[in-house]
Amino acid sequence: MTFRATILGSGSAMPTAGRHNSAHVLDVHEQFYLIDCGEGTQMQLRRYGISPLKLHSIFITHLHGDHVFGLPGLISSMNAMRRRTPLYIYGVHPLDELLAHHRRYFDPVTEFDIVYREVDARRNERVFENKVMEVFTVPLRHRVPTTGYLFREKRPGLNVRKEMIGPYGLTLKEIVGLKRGEDLVREDGTTVPNAELTYTPYEPRSYAHLSDTLYSPKAAELVKGVDLLYHEATYLDADRKTARQNGHSTALQAAKAAVLADAGQLLLGHFSARYKDENLFLEEARQIFPNTLLAREGETVEIPVRRRRK
Amino acid sequence: MTFRATILGSGSAMPTAGRHNSAHVLDVHEQFYLIDCGEGTQMQLRRYGISPLKLHSIFITHLHGDHVFGLPGLISSMNAMRRRTPLYIYGVHPLDELLAHHRRYFDPVTEFDIVYREVDARRNERVFENKVMEVFTVPLRHRVPTTGYLFREKRPGLNVRKEMIGPYGLTLKEIVGLKRGEDLVREDGTTVPNAELTYTPYEPRSYAHLSDTLYSPKAAELVKGVDLLYHEATYLDADRKTARQNGHSTALQAAKAAVLADAGQLLLGHFSARYKDENLFLEEARQIFPNTLLAREGETVEIPVRRRRK
Repeated sequence: MTFRATILGSGSAMPTAGRHNSAHVLDVHEQFYLIDCGEGTQMQLRRYGISPLKLHSIFITHLHGDHVFGLPGLISSMNAMRRRTPLYIYGVHPLDELLAHHRRYFDPVTEFDIVYREVDARRNERVFENKVMEVFTVPLRHRVPTTGYLFREKRPGLNVRKEMIGPYGLTLKEIVGLKRGEDLVREDGTTVPNAELTYTPYEPRSYAHLSDTLYSPKAAELVKGVDLLYHEATYLDADRKTARQNGHSTALQAAKAAVLADAGQLLLGHFSARYKDENLFLEEARQIFPNTLLAREGETVEIPVRRRRK
Repeated sequence: MTFRATILGSGSAMPTAGRHNSAHVLDVHEQFYLIDCGEGTQMQLRRYGISPLKLHSIFITHLHGDHVFGLPGLISSMNAMRRRTPLYIYGVHPLDELLAHHRRYFDPVTEFDIVYREVDARRNERVFENKVMEVFTVPLRHRVPTTGYLFREKRPGLNVRKEMIGPYGLTLKEIVGLKRGEDLVREDGTTVPNAELTYTPYEPRSYAHLSDTLYSPKAAELVKGVDLLYHEATYLDADRKTARQNGHSTALQAAKAAVLADAGQLLLGHFSARYKDENLFLEEARQIFPNTLLAREGETVEIPVRRRRK
């Protein structure tokens, strides 16, 4: 039951030899989701051993080049690799037009469907769900319509504590009832509270991806309690005027968002090429949010399973 | 008076962690020309210390993704870097449509002009010239309209041998005449042959870029005498059927082209991801064309100045 984010790109608009454009892979229960797809993403996927064929869907935050210029190459390579399973792409209009343009000029025929799912960057709503996870849009404040994404495990069903089955002589029918959350009512009329016999197999984990954005208390509120918050930190606070002009955040502002969101961990990325030493971002953020990490390309941040008796 | 090619990408359609998509930089007399622009070209330029702002023009061979998917990012970065000098882009239709699409969605405003120069992939003709160099198209045989390019220094004007000026008491007028190729006629009516007093400062150097293509004797003939021949070698000869099906050459065929072109050196590239050991290409080509090199990313092949007395 994996839940982990791998960083493929840690740079902002201007890639450098050491920092690629934005792209993260989220692995939730061995299903892979790509978030943004800057130039070079397909090479980064290969470098870190993630097959493009494994990607279930792609979530695009906004239509700036450094977040989408890797899409054409990735789609073409999936086609060359003869992908057959559908590829779902989430993003804002006119991503549909960009995809149509690509298909027309480069991949008119594919053996797999490219399913475009338009999202509304102004709304906070669920745009994806499967058995174990759901994804919500989180409106951000940038120069163009931009949405963050919140990935959250669903609360799993109750399990019956195995060691209780024998002593209580639980029937199949009683077990089904317990799993539904009902208390146990014995033939003699006594009641055993559900909590005594069941447990939640794991606490739902969550990952929020907020890039690119001005400091937004509202967005932080929308991801309240998130385990791992990725927040862009294009600039240091000394350059907060430039950050503001360009619709970006500073490391300090990212930390403020983490405090407000009551996040478990903060992951900083999208560093401007003007800074050589990334540790300055870390130091700045840790002043107010100690549990901060730097996005380092190829590294994976895992959120371990937490079990808690109900 | 530089004349050298730097390899930025040595892979074919499917980039790997170690082999990028096609891109070469030719430096002719400190003027930089980019040939093809696969995904990741802007990062490769930076990695090898070539500023995107230095590129005078871009020559695109054909419109397969692995040769053009780096253009959007490169143009956007030039814009972010506030380029002001015009950028010339040579290529076949519908590259004009791809560029227009890019401008519309990503760079509607630039401080520099993007000058599109359409070339005809069926013709062998001069498409560029400046004081020191000219560029010719070389029709290739691929699955889509594809042109190679031949870059050739112009024959420089004659220089007067300095050590002759004193002994002959050459006047300014006589020097001008000698530079024009005239013989020297003295007042007493005697004539000194031009060749005795002048020299060609250097022999014109040339670089041909043939990618992607089936083996084409015709193309080889068109670059006859070239100093450095870059020829694609996507496959080994054992896979020549696959090569043929995909419109590509084998290392052996590239070597045959080099023999036919009477090339000085052969540079092999565009290696398929299926081969791990590039030395197999080298061994195969050297069987019939010993002076063969492998395209290695970041390496520069220099053609030194050759001086020859006329």
